[in-house]
Amino acid sequence: MPLTEEQQREIAEGAAAQRPTRRPTVAALEDILHAALPVLDHGFLRVIDYMGDDGAIVQAARVSYGRGTRRVSEDAGLIRYLMRHRHTTPFEMCEIKFHVKLPIFVARQWIRHRMASVNEISARYSVLDREFYLPAPQHLAAQSELNRQGRGRSLEGQEAAEVLALLRQDAERNYRHYQDMLNEDEAGQRRDPARAGLARELARMNLTLNVYTQWYWKTDLHNLFHFLSLRADAHAQYEIRAYAEVMLDVVKRWVPLAHAAFADYRLGGVSLSAGGLAVVRRLLAGEAVTPADSGLSMREWRELMAVLGRVKEPG
Amino acid sequence: MPLTEEQQREIAEGAAAQRPTRRPTVAALEDILHAALPVLDHGFLRVIDYMGDDGAIVQAARVSYGRGTRRVSEDAGLIRYLMRHRHTTPFEMCEIKFHVKLPIFVARQWIRHRMASVNEISARYSVLDREFYLPAPQHLAAQSELNRQGRGRSLEGQEAAEVLALLRQDAERNYRHYQDMLNEDEAGQRRDPARAGLARELARMNLTLNVYTQWYWKTDLHNLFHFLSLRADAHAQYEIRAYAEVMLDVVKRWVPLAHAAFADYRLGGVSLSAGGLAVVRRLLAGEAVTPADSGLSMREWRELMAVLGRVKEPG
Amino acid sequence: MPLTEEQQREIAEGAAAQRPTRRPTVAALEDILHAALPVLDHGFLRVIDYMGDDGAIVQAARVSYGRGTRRVSEDAGLIRYLMRHRHTTPFEMCEIKFHVKLPIFVARQWIRHRMASVNEISARYSVLDREFYLPAPQHLAAQSELNRQGRGRSLEGQEAAEVLALLRQDAERNYRHYQDMLNEDEAGQRRDPARAGLARELARMNLTLNVYTQWYWKTDLHNLFHFLSLRADAHAQYEIRAYAEVMLDVVKRWVPLAHAAFADYRLGGVSLSAGGLAVVRRLLAGEAVTPADSGLSMREWRELMAVLGRVKEPG
Amino acid sequence: MPLTEEQQREIAEGAAAQRPTRRPTVAALEDILHAALPVLDHGFLRVIDYMGDDGAIVQAARVSYGRGTRRVSEDAGLIRYLMRHRHTTPFEMCEIKFHVKLPIFVARQWIRHRMASVNEISARYSVLDREFYLPAPQHLAAQSELNRQGRGRSLEGQEAAEVLALLRQDAERNYRHYQDMLNEDEAGQRRDPARAGLARELARMNLTLNVYTQWYWKTDLHNLFHFLSLRADAHAQYEIRAYAEVMLDVVKRWVPLAHAAFADYRLGGVSLSAGGLAVVRRLLAGEAVTPADSGLSMREWRELMAVLGRVKEPG
Repeated sequence: MPLTEEQQREIAEGAAAQRPTRRPTVAALEDILHAALPVLDHGFLRVIDYMGDDGAIVQAARVSYGRGTRRVSEDAGLIRYLMRHRHTTPFEMCEIKFHVKLPIFVARQWIRHRMASVNEISARYSVLDREFYLPAPQHLAAQSELNRQGRGRSLEGQEAAEVLALLRQDAERNYRHYQDMLNEDEAGQRRDPARAGLARELARMNLTLNVYTQWYWKTDLHNLFHFLSLRADAHAQYEIRAYAEVMLDVVKRWVPLAHAAFADYRLGGVSLSAGGLAVVRRLLAGEAVTPADSGLSMREWRELMAVLGRVKEPG
Repeated sequence: MPLTEEQQREIAEGAAAQRPTRRPTVAALEDILHAALPVLDHGFLRVIDYMGDDGAIVQAARVSYGRGTRRVSEDAGLIRYLMRHRHTTPFEMCEIKFHVKLPIFVARQWIRHRMASVNEISARYSVLDREFYLPAPQHLAAQSELNRQGRGRSLEGQEAAEVLALLRQDAERNYRHYQDMLNEDEAGQRRDPARAGLARELARMNLTLNVYTQWYWKTDLHNLFHFLSLRADAHAQYEIRAYAEVMLDVVKRWVPLAHAAFADYRLGGVSLSAGGLAVVRRLLAGEAVTPADSGLSMREWRELMAVLGRVKEPG
Repeated sequence: MPLTEEQQREIAEGAAAQRPTRRPTVAALEDILHAALPVLDHGFLRVIDYMGDDGAIVQAARVSYGRGTRRVSEDAGLIRYLMRHRHTTPFEMCEIKFHVKLPIFVARQWIRHRMASVNEISARYSVLDREFYLPAPQHLAAQSELNRQGRGRSLEGQEAAEVLALLRQDAERNYRHYQDMLNEDEAGQRRDPARAGLARELARMNLTLNVYTQWYWKTDLHNLFHFLSLRADAHAQYEIRAYAEVMLDVVKRWVPLAHAAFADYRLGGVSLSAGGLAVVRRLLAGEAVTPADSGLSMREWRELMAVLGRVKEPG
Repeated sequence: MPLTEEQQREIAEGAAAQRPTRRPTVAALEDILHAALPVLDHGFLRVIDYMGDDGAIVQAARVSYGRGTRRVSEDAGLIRYLMRHRHTTPFEMCEIKFHVKLPIFVARQWIRHRMASVNEISARYSVLDREFYLPAPQHLAAQSELNRQGRGRSLEGQEAAEVLALLRQDAERNYRHYQDMLNEDEAGQRRDPARAGLARELARMNLTLNVYTQWYWKTDLHNLFHFLSLRADAHAQYEIRAYAEVMLDVVKRWVPLAHAAFADYRLGGVSLSAGGLAVVRRLLAGEAVTPADSGLSMREWRELMAVLGRVKEPG
């Protein structure tokens, strides 16, 4: 996670300065504000700014429901109620801003979440840094044989070594040629005075998708929860999940009540279809239900049995 | 601007508490944080929370443009550049949250701005307060004779008095009947034990559109500027413009550099069509251009001449 | 459901004209295109235009998953898979446009759905029609005693008669005074030449919230499903649910496979929290679980038992 | 622009089928529906579906303004009025869906436009095709010396040849290694039975940013105009502008009146700041204005003089 000197200085300055405010503050989040939390081999996640806390969710909900919510007097209970009944707008009242360094192929998944604000480093203006992601051995996984989008076991022995070598060599070579085409040295000076140098916006096309980029990414808590429900999920690609898991820790510091409700209702919760619910009710009534008379497809049956803990989840 | 006791206590508490933060702060905005800024006869606007400052805009822009922006070293110049070239994403990096009390017919215009988060008091849960907007005499305007959506001069004498009396009497009577149908007294107790009382969600339909509602409204600076460019404009209805003008003052305290750029490029700026620009170029070249040979419609010609200060703006 | 002559002509013309297209078409939806489907006492819903069909959802999903989806060869199965796993983007590939006439208090709930395009009749430009919603006797409900936002039984006898009379008289009187203030007759001519007439944008504030408005409303199928999951739900206010139910019928004609999946997974489905799922697993294992050792609050316990069909849903 | 056999069959089928509809149709757009319009060396743009026409814009505007718009009786005049006064919602009533094949680095710029629906081929599920963008000689441009994000003259001679060779060799090698790591042949069969094959979601990281991807992209006309105002602009990178220019032709076929208004007011129009407008007024009044007494910065002065045709645009 190499930080530039400028970034290190910015982080140190941000962490040092303390100013008074009349806004809600969250001490546990202030503690890690500005700090670069490491992710993957060269990436990081930094909390740059935030707005609101658990109390801001409650405050907004009480405006909506007015005097009607006096009975649900406890904050935790109200937040659980909002999460359970998908009353999502109070969660929009909290906002957070991250500075993230991440591989381009991860950025391509991430950017699909549209309800957020983004400022990414532009490779039209700037020369990207020479840093690219290489999976650790335990993450160098084979294609799953059961699941078109999943991973199987880790590659081993010579195959693992060869794959890693190819990834490294190709990324390094392509970066070197990127510099050659730019005709720029590290300091941004022209290397060969006889060459014009290819435009940055063109030269970048030679880079590989594991090169790191950086951005500021700002969203509200409702949309962050949606992001996390997809990206902290076991079906998400490991590399973006690594970021999501660090973000989950951040959310736990920031809004512990909302985090607990989210963990219970979303991360740990399940959805049942009308057909699936009917099966559960029959089972609870002591009926013996078979796949054939369940009204479910075999695939849905297996998924339901896995959810109910009766079999392992299908691969 | 009657505030409930609970609101007054909340405001006093919010204004009193000071906590340390490592986030950017804006002293001029902290000074008015939580305070209820009066608008119209019973409305208000309160800044509840904010994220970012002029520096946050610059910070995001410098991430995007990287080393490329070193030359535009001065913040004000960079912010003006962003505004001039409609590089809007850095302005999304600032966020603000308002508590607003406003008449329902104003809320109906306001809510059309979709890129914002809203929690409004729900008249399904709560009984709305007995407060409604009545225009001050100078705002009791006649329909414009020139413009289908505009106002003309103020009503005068007996007509003004009669209109105001109708507005007041109808709002009062409808609110009284709203209470009658609810069968609730001020303390929320049943008045007549023999009556069930109409459901709140139904009784509210008897209220007039000038009854006040309240909401929390949160948006980013880019979308706030869009709101203000439409609602602080001379063509906006006076009642929503009254809120927009108070918000403009808030923005000036919060992000003075961005406010100045917005005032110059958006509020005070104009757009010329290709045809309009061609006319300006011909005029500057000393040509005598007539409406007939301008290539513009009469309406566009009049609007252009008004913009260029050659005639008064058409009604 | 009084339609203006102009609207009747437009509907007749739209229904009569047939043109060839190379786009996907849906015969069952074409059959009701343009027709005014009645809702409430004076409202309607018209399908004005649409884009896509069940096949368009499948087409988009197959682009995403490429060769990987060949195994899920059947369209219905693929659409069910997308719905079950909340792969929502393919549903965004279908779009529909409605013309709706609805009471203002319903419009105020409806407009909260932000991911849609809206053009509403403007009461700054136009004089609204003299039509307002009055509940049918069976919908004139008392406030629920159990639920802050719900309805109880219907009002009866004299109370019902008095409430209905108040609603009607107040709406009529306020509309009449609206016309008086405007100083306009039905044909838009000045009634009293000695009066200027209040501006339309002001006079409208005297109208009650049950006056009808109209708009064009356009959204995609994913966002329409979100709307319907909230507004066709038993907890939605009856008046907006009346529109949602007509829309459900429209969706069934338009995209029958997607409609069936939505009915099974969303409308008829339920969500269980991690805690709720643990209780279900213990019950299935034959354990006797009590509220006290369930780990759930009493409220959550009652909601869960209702979902599982063990008790009636709490009020 | 190699199309797969499946795509060619789909295009042929789509173009052949004609069905009757009661929706608005646009003959000039139907003529090119489904056809693959070539862009760059291997890319294309296909119109897959559309909703609405110029009449749909007018229809929505007339609902908004009601009887008030009878005077602006002509459609072209009304559409020009909407565009001039930035009444944008009626333009949202038209929708279009494209199938696009484009290099990944172009897709990364494109996806920044958030108000659209996207289904992209997933390299987690599918193996990407072996196709990558190589600039034609006239587009192999040097970095601009004046502008941090611009292009200068084309590279020439040996430098051009070397750059092109590097781009080609690196893309080819990286794709070959991508296949090696996957351990799959063209038919998707395992090549070396002794190797497991790297997961697709990992192997893709070895690809270069000029590899082609594909997506379905659907947006409304308002947001499409916003896209085109930025991407058909002279400051946009050539490669995305190539797509924008083909889209402009499509828009001209689809909604010729809206296209003409857009060309006049947006593409060919300019914005003046308050300060810039003041200078124009002084010049028109015959004053001699110098940069020093203009109140503008030198940069703004030069940009204004370029707009007014008094000097060439600054680089």
